[in-house]
Amino acid sequence: MDSEDKLINRIARAIPSRIARVSGKTAGDCLRLGIGDDSAVLAPSGKTDWVISCDAFMEGVHFLPNLHPADSVGYKSLVRAASDLAAMGAAPRLFLLTLALPAKRTGAWLDGFLKGMGRAARLLGMRLAGGDTTKFPAVSISITVLGELARGLAVTRSGAKPGDLIYVSGRLGQTQLGLELIRKGFGKERRYSPLLRSHLYPAIRVELGMWLAQRRIASAMMDISDGLSTDLPRLCRSSGTGARLFGRQIPCVEIPVNVRKLLRPRNLDALEMALNGGEDYELLFTVPPHKVKRLREAPGSSELTAIGEITGKQDLVILTDGRQRPLQRLGWDPFRKK
Amino acid sequence: MDSEDKLINRIARAIPSRIARVSGKTAGDCLRLGIGDDSAVLAPSGKTDWVISCDAFMEGVHFLPNLHPADSVGYKSLVRAASDLAAMGAAPRLFLLTLALPAKRTGAWLDGFLKGMGRAARLLGMRLAGGDTTKFPAVSISITVLGELARGLAVTRSGAKPGDLIYVSGRLGQTQLGLELIRKGFGKERRYSPLLRSHLYPAIRVELGMWLAQRRIASAMMDISDGLSTDLPRLCRSSGTGARLFGRQIPCVEIPVNVRKLLRPRNLDALEMALNGGEDYELLFTVPPHKVKRLREAPGSSELTAIGEITGKQDLVILTDGRQRPLQRLGWDPFRKK
Repeated sequence: MDSEDKLINRIARAIPSRIARVSGKTAGDCLRLGIGDDSAVLAPSGKTDWVISCDAFMEGVHFLPNLHPADSVGYKSLVRAASDLAAMGAAPRLFLLTLALPAKRTGAWLDGFLKGMGRAARLLGMRLAGGDTTKFPAVSISITVLGELARGLAVTRSGAKPGDLIYVSGRLGQTQLGLELIRKGFGKERRYSPLLRSHLYPAIRVELGMWLAQRRIASAMMDISDGLSTDLPRLCRSSGTGARLFGRQIPCVEIPVNVRKLLRPRNLDALEMALNGGEDYELLFTVPPHKVKRLREAPGSSELTAIGEITGKQDLVILTDGRQRPLQRLGWDPFRKK
Repeated sequence: MDSEDKLINRIARAIPSRIARVSGKTAGDCLRLGIGDDSAVLAPSGKTDWVISCDAFMEGVHFLPNLHPADSVGYKSLVRAASDLAAMGAAPRLFLLTLALPAKRTGAWLDGFLKGMGRAARLLGMRLAGGDTTKFPAVSISITVLGELARGLAVTRSGAKPGDLIYVSGRLGQTQLGLELIRKGFGKERRYSPLLRSHLYPAIRVELGMWLAQRRIASAMMDISDGLSTDLPRLCRSSGTGARLFGRQIPCVEIPVNVRKLLRPRNLDALEMALNGGEDYELLFTVPPHKVKRLREAPGSSELTAIGEITGKQDLVILTDGRQRPLQRLGWDPFRKK
């Protein structure tokens, strides 16, 4: 067996997957043929919709091998891709992995990577259905995820209407706080690990997304990956609306006093971090006023916050300190000119 | 609109795609929602199977920007991915594009890339359903392709039986000849363009693959991407068989005398190129003896050649010059230790 094939076998052992045969029994789902052939084969029931998305995770852009443990890279690359399924209201099912990496990363680093990815796959109930591997000077990861949900129930970005309330899950900006700590060299200090977790091993809102979709409660939904100030305009543009945010209601990262001192001279502003820090992987969704009270039954309902409302205008504004100002798009954009 | 979103719009204009809404009319297929949301949405009929595969195409590994025109990179990256669908017997339908590239490639280079990819998509009848873009020091492309075929008819690598005949389509090694010419600096000379075509703008065997699958004529099938000597062992291992190749029957690249002179001192061996040159994207398939005569009706039947037979042994051998020798795996393997 040559070494690319050995690598594929190593991946298949570390991550929930199946090298199935079309003629064999299926395991209660529609994956008829898994990794190891030219393509995977799916036999969809025709009763559900499938959602599909892909996501890049690149060395030096999305992670740094000397700062981010290999298992975090494996874990996060899958979880952040699956967040796009949660954002439609779908249950994660399958994924494909394109992995390009230097020879020096095929040893212990790859073991760590696969361990993290395997853990994420088990947590999410996902199986590896295919992929491609090649050598490359830097680690380049592309993950395609597939999810399933009842026919016609996918929640898009385009359904928001003026008067709908804007909600987010969780607290925004926490991931950026974790990144700041890691950059300052505190990535391995155990006492900060609760603050690092959302950066290294983010949780995503699969249950909430499914709940909102199944009950048709969200009129529009997306996940916050590039920062609220960049992602909300995308939702509004898709919906042909504007929005008004109430700055004081935005659930911001809590920055402990000792951490604030630690990170000086950098003067952290929790609201700026909540607006512009990327990688929150929280859900951003809109709810018509008459459905709002049903949110009390939502999974993690105590972590949902109304932060504004959809307007019929074309602009996005934020109210802070009694003043209304335009919402500036200062979130993550790899191609923005500095 | 920020610049990542502008880039996505540029891609969507250049490549057949649709920014659809779930609530809107569907265009006669199951793509309910195209690019521009968190995920694409498919509503499969339940009457067909879907096959899915992904493929990496990396600067410096699979192509060199100073040798390969941008439109070839765009064309080939999609076509070679779709070849994995043809290898299952499926009709290509949709694809997702992960594109990471340096700022200097976002201008004319990207236009050329998208032009080539758009042409390939139109030729194959494929539409872009989603993707991801990011900045990266080198061009890194990952393409996920989806194809469709009648339920249960996908042809895998694992169905070959002792006594089946081994077939290939086309001539093997042509792509390597093209690459040799390009490396020597003849990539832009018009008189060599017929010899360069299979390297720069390969054709793939979609019709043949579909024909073989629909009639259940091929017992096993794959495409030759890493070279016959590397890919045939994969088919045999999946099938639990061995194989015997008849060296003289392998349809090898024809090397014109003037080209042979041109490429000296390199002494090209057509059989070696046919066995070990990668990127042929021809189909390699096995046919039970009683079905062989039906191949006369196959699309491109005159280009099909029986090159050997499947055996019950575990080894792979090739007969050349009256001698039988083991088939050495000398095709493309990015991770092989030199």
